[in-house]
Amino acid sequence: MNKNFEKLKPYLEKAMAFETARNLFEWDDQTQAPIEAADYTSKVNGILADEYMKSLINDDVRSILKKLQDDKEQESLSDTEKAIIKELKKTYDQLESIPPKEYREFNELTLVSNRKWAKARKDNNYDDFAPYLEKIIQYKKKFAKYRVKKNQKPYEVLLSDFDECFEIQDLDLFFHKIKEEIIPLLKEISKKADTIDKSYNYLNYDIDKQREFCRYLCGYIGFDFNRGVIGESAHPFTLQLHNHDVRITDRYIEDNLESAMFSIIHEAGHALYEMNIDDSLTQTLVGGGASMGMHESQSRFFENIIGRSKEFWEPIYSKLVDTYPDNLKNISLDHFINGINKAAPSLIRTEADELSYPIHIIIRYEIEKMIFDNEVSIKELPEVWNKKYQDYMGITPPDDAQGILQDTHWSYGEFGYFPSYAIGSAVASQIHAHMKDIMPFDEYLKGGNLTPIREYLRDSIHKYGATKNTNQILKDVTGEEFNADYYVKYLKDKYTKLYNLEVEK
Amino acid sequence: MNKNFEKLKPYLEKAMAFETARNLFEWDDQTQAPIEAADYTSKVNGILADEYMKSLINDDVRSILKKLQDDKEQESLSDTEKAIIKELKKTYDQLESIPPKEYREFNELTLVSNRKWAKARKDNNYDDFAPYLEKIIQYKKKFAKYRVKKNQKPYEVLLSDFDECFEIQDLDLFFHKIKEEIIPLLKEISKKADTIDKSYNYLNYDIDKQREFCRYLCGYIGFDFNRGVIGESAHPFTLQLHNHDVRITDRYIEDNLESAMFSIIHEAGHALYEMNIDDSLTQTLVGGGASMGMHESQSRFFENIIGRSKEFWEPIYSKLVDTYPDNLKNISLDHFINGINKAAPSLIRTEADELSYPIHIIIRYEIEKMIFDNEVSIKELPEVWNKKYQDYMGITPPDDAQGILQDTHWSYGEFGYFPSYAIGSAVASQIHAHMKDIMPFDEYLKGGNLTPIREYLRDSIHKYGATKNTNQILKDVTGEEFNADYYVKYLKDKYTKLYNLEVEK
Repeated sequence: MNKNFEKLKPYLEKAMAFETARNLFEWDDQTQAPIEAADYTSKVNGILADEYMKSLINDDVRSILKKLQDDKEQESLSDTEKAIIKELKKTYDQLESIPPKEYREFNELTLVSNRKWAKARKDNNYDDFAPYLEKIIQYKKKFAKYRVKKNQKPYEVLLSDFDECFEIQDLDLFFHKIKEEIIPLLKEISKKADTIDKSYNYLNYDIDKQREFCRYLCGYIGFDFNRGVIGESAHPFTLQLHNHDVRITDRYIEDNLESAMFSIIHEAGHALYEMNIDDSLTQTLVGGGASMGMHESQSRFFENIIGRSKEFWEPIYSKLVDTYPDNLKNISLDHFINGINKAAPSLIRTEADELSYPIHIIIRYEIEKMIFDNEVSIKELPEVWNKKYQDYMGITPPDDAQGILQDTHWSYGEFGYFPSYAIGSAVASQIHAHMKDIMPFDEYLKGGNLTPIREYLRDSIHKYGATKNTNQILKDVTGEEFNADYYVKYLKDKYTKLYNLEVEK
Repeated sequence: MNKNFEKLKPYLEKAMAFETARNLFEWDDQTQAPIEAADYTSKVNGILADEYMKSLINDDVRSILKKLQDDKEQESLSDTEKAIIKELKKTYDQLESIPPKEYREFNELTLVSNRKWAKARKDNNYDDFAPYLEKIIQYKKKFAKYRVKKNQKPYEVLLSDFDECFEIQDLDLFFHKIKEEIIPLLKEISKKADTIDKSYNYLNYDIDKQREFCRYLCGYIGFDFNRGVIGESAHPFTLQLHNHDVRITDRYIEDNLESAMFSIIHEAGHALYEMNIDDSLTQTLVGGGASMGMHESQSRFFENIIGRSKEFWEPIYSKLVDTYPDNLKNISLDHFINGINKAAPSLIRTEADELSYPIHIIIRYEIEKMIFDNEVSIKELPEVWNKKYQDYMGITPPDDAQGILQDTHWSYGEFGYFPSYAIGSAVASQIHAHMKDIMPFDEYLKGGNLTPIREYLRDSIHKYGATKNTNQILKDVTGEEFNADYYVKYLKDKYTKLYNLEVEK
């Protein structure tokens, strides 16, 4: 065993403990903490965050890390240890160049600006949020400048924090393809909106029964209740303490059958990833998913590719009908499958269907690029936003609450994050295409046997945690690096068939 | 502001943060964590515990603490600061004399022995637990020896960890009174067991309705749902992150109406104490209750003195009847009040009524004294236990699971703790006697107005946190230090009346 790596361990373990504690506070805050607790609890969280930073960023670790860069040292490290060192180095690269004072100021700012954003959205008042957004962007630009390499654009620095495999040119190419193919398709479909009925979805669905059915769906997919729990929160999310404690939440809406169901399938997809990460990696710096995009690929794989397929529902749709006989007894499986796949241009990203979803991402990506290229002022943003929705979707947000104020990300400084969602969908399609080649994928679904699918994902993706990056995983699994063509083909095939559209020759 | 105290603050705040995190993990473990999480999560808890210790016990703090003992330094400290220093000094006195290696070994032992105890109780096999109990006692004796002062008995060291106001001679006197007065009373009552009917309590009571009614009771008593939550766990408990986040749990038994109700009133009593501690004290070393006994006094005050009184139920009993009309429509308020106060010799402490409860404590106290005076071997303990139950209660446990194995305390080394429960009951009676003198106590209850009672407790006890000890509080509130006579009188009056016994002249 490498002696220097051994010296590193206590620091890494301390950081892990503080991070796990912060995660538990996050879970608690979102799911059950009493409303007046926040001010006092945030003091605790502030200290834990400080201690987390101190346990990783300090002279001892810096000096050990430097020694470990040496070639000879590298030779005596295992692959996992190398991956951990690489991850730690990344943290140093991200944080070392930023003056601690500025970093602290920025963190304090985001706490305030997130609240300001929530209020501005509620009040539908962009002007109240704009000054905070401006300050956040100034900090992000400054931080990017500290870190930017030669010939690198500031926005690229931010993108690299979420996935090292995607640079602007890759994303430009990816999104160009989507725009070219999906925008016209979406326009076609919006003309045929009436051909799919979805009114059954908006009847009254008892929430206790929803809760019970969603729990059933989770178990059906393979969520292990001995290693995870389902909670409730305003916005569904997944959070892990380690691979033996993975938590997901859902929210239940009485007059919307599918909302909670597809949310829980989505979160269960994230959860399976985390539960399947190898025991030797959990509680280390590479004990999470490979990237945000990779993580989203797994949630979307389960939510959309599996969860919205006819094959998935064939063995279990009758159980759903039995749960709500009054509402569903006259809704055939085909009727239901069409309903859950109905697509249309939309204003709100988080409620968008599979087809319009990437367009929402493209709009945000293009605006973020403009911001960091200094091509747009904060004041102009709502106008730019609305124009893009009109151009790409054919609809204009009636107000900023349903427009530029809808997402929380920018309010806490997360720029460069949105593309991960679209990358996730595309990765899911690429993996799906490969899996269909090598196993009777649809037969497994029809037979209600998800085990071989889940085990394949575990053994080829999940168990590696973050020891491989997105492209390494894709190469090892599918034989090629990221390729958006599968995604475009998947969407085109699916929606052309669903809406009986003319197929281009 | 005192400069040395200022230097201390960052250490105290770090310790507070780690302690709060550990409390949240404790809550989570008891109420919702998935069952397979324990091994991985315990690693996190171990690190947090270590860091907690390191943040308090280190050379910097030791040296500051030493400086602060100086008279001049003390003069420039506020009362709260003095109390914090005193508390910190106590921690040093408790831990500094114990070699860290032994302390760690002991903590590891208790983790194992607690599990062994649980299994031994389940299997009703004392012999499986005995070797662990023996080791724990050896450690406790050794630790006590490190700390024992001249003319002090080892058991007294342990007692002082829970309440500095009670030495062996005080407890001997207290328990002697109880034995003399209560054991004969209990014997009298056991002859008249049939005069009180309680069969209504064991009918079927829908658990959802129990949950709802218990929530109502909490709010009625004054539990603030903006600053607290109710969870569920195998054994009801109270836990606070700070005074704005106080959590209680309950468990619901379908064929036992009163179990959940009185558990939640008890825990709500603890919670009110914590919620009412002053904002300036919460998140400091004196931000909890004054002592375990003082804390139990508040829970028992609400559970027994208020919660089992006819005056308390007068305004709300009809609501309970309306909740369970089939079971309770023929049960009058008097019938119900008699039922919830029915007393009898019993084997299990946690299920004991108000009258037999202190006898359970006395048995444990006497056995603990024998253990630390080396008057009994581990092997002989079950026999000693059973004999005392026969002597004092007139019944013998049919097996060790219902005898010496029933309590968890010894399995993690908590000796000297049990007396707090009895002290709590006695303190509650003393405070009650005083409150009846200075306010229309029963009228408040009858009027459904608990606010003046709660505010009095807040202003005279709760808000001070641990800045005063038990006797200081009692002196300031009632004009005298601890006096067990009120408790004996309360029990005698209440049960003599309840069972229509002849009053001694």
